[in-house]
Amino acid sequence: MVDCGEGTQMQLRKYKLKIGKINHIFISHLHGDHTFGLFGLISTLGLLDKSSDLNIYAPPPLEQIVHDHLDAFDIHIPYRLVFRDLDCSKSEMIYEDKNLRVETIPLQHRIPTCGFLFHEKPGLRNIKKEAIEEFNIPVREIHRIKEGFDFTTESGEIIPNEQLTREPQKPRSMAYCTDTLYTENVITKIAGVDLLYHEATYMQDMADQAKESFHTTSQQAAMLAKKSGVGKLVLGHFSARYKNLDLLLEEARKIFENTFLAEDGAVFNID
Amino acid sequence: MVDCGEGTQMQLRKYKLKIGKINHIFISHLHGDHTFGLFGLISTLGLLDKSSDLNIYAPPPLEQIVHDHLDAFDIHIPYRLVFRDLDCSKSEMIYEDKNLRVETIPLQHRIPTCGFLFHEKPGLRNIKKEAIEEFNIPVREIHRIKEGFDFTTESGEIIPNEQLTREPQKPRSMAYCTDTLYTENVITKIAGVDLLYHEATYMQDMADQAKESFHTTSQQAAMLAKKSGVGKLVLGHFSARYKNLDLLLEEARKIFENTFLAEDGAVFNID
Repeated sequence: MVDCGEGTQMQLRKYKLKIGKINHIFISHLHGDHTFGLFGLISTLGLLDKSSDLNIYAPPPLEQIVHDHLDAFDIHIPYRLVFRDLDCSKSEMIYEDKNLRVETIPLQHRIPTCGFLFHEKPGLRNIKKEAIEEFNIPVREIHRIKEGFDFTTESGEIIPNEQLTREPQKPRSMAYCTDTLYTENVITKIAGVDLLYHEATYMQDMADQAKESFHTTSQQAAMLAKKSGVGKLVLGHFSARYKNLDLLLEEARKIFENTFLAEDGAVFNID
Repeated sequence: MVDCGEGTQMQLRKYKLKIGKINHIFISHLHGDHTFGLFGLISTLGLLDKSSDLNIYAPPPLEQIVHDHLDAFDIHIPYRLVFRDLDCSKSEMIYEDKNLRVETIPLQHRIPTCGFLFHEKPGLRNIKKEAIEEFNIPVREIHRIKEGFDFTTESGEIIPNEQLTREPQKPRSMAYCTDTLYTENVITKIAGVDLLYHEATYMQDMADQAKESFHTTSQQAAMLAKKSGVGKLVLGHFSARYKNLDLLLEEARKIFENTFLAEDGAVFNID
């Protein structure tokens, strides 16, 4: 999960997402609209008898704040909280497993703030069904062939891997950038991602206000999406002043057509 | 406002209640589902440029917790927070103005917990329109007559107040009791209130669980309503196990007919 504003657990329940499955939370910065839901969520995970670690990646001093909070309310949880302090001045690799890599993206806000880049790792090659039959490949060899190795038949003939497999699915990627000033420093990190979530607090006619409050306009977010050659742009973090979000969408689409609004409950597929 | 669980500000917005009008918050006890919305609300009231005091009545050490929280997140608010520590071991008068009196009701929960009793003060007597004409009462005398004084006519005749006025509207009252064990100690405090909000975490078949966790069953809440002679009972604080709340309602109505469910957004009139 990325960020955890007040009411996150209610939204998870509303959209029938399994709260108990959350093991990693990435927090961009320590403002209330990105963190105030953590306390209730941590508490509820305790009531749900979570036993696996909950890993929280956040700028300091969130670890201290959370522990002080648990002490103040005398909350005891049956699982372990594991914090990783983020240094938002540079990009770091903060998480890796066999499928996924997560890196931070330094952003420019009033306080230390990180974006996050989620990169799927390349999968195994897809073995051709017809090749299994043709060369009589035994089951025990299949995983090695998917990893890219050639196959030697019973008669000693070497079949090159390209003849046996197809390219794996292209690894998918997603970047999350909020809250931040418009900054082109992020382009090298987010270049070519399939989906960019970017804040668009204001419209372009309030560019001065955006700059002053370290936020981005809808038009600026679209410029970044264009310059970074991303697949899809999802806008969010809108100022409460906008009752009609279509205006922000239109402004962005003039520059980057494949733009969408991160409205409550919205789901975006990355193919 | 009474209690402030996570997401309170979202609910206020959803039901179009003016957040900025809140000047007094009564907190029953320091569990998360009654307090975790305070931090976001305090912060939002700051963004809305609230200038009048926000008064918070709560068991200690909420004042310390809130100040630590504001410090940790470096939140500066343009209004004053005024805390009143509640001693939940006895009933206290904690608020009074020209229309209203608020008293605490000692409850029995795992931690110090207070209920609240809201008592409207008797209003002025209603002056009879026809009396104003009959006795030629000047405008300047009307307020005194509404306060209960007799009127002396120009010819010196004394007209008794009862002849000039009708009884004022009966002062309304409401009690709020959560979280708590079933306890008849509250009866003297809540006797005859127009509306009793009482927790009903469980149904009667889980009375043991209710006792163990210092909660009340629906049947027990109805018993209290009956023994206290209240006008209307509103049940709330239901365990998440109950998908169909009508079962709790039916259980209570067998004992106390005039019972209702405190569902999200419900409004109850006190006539």
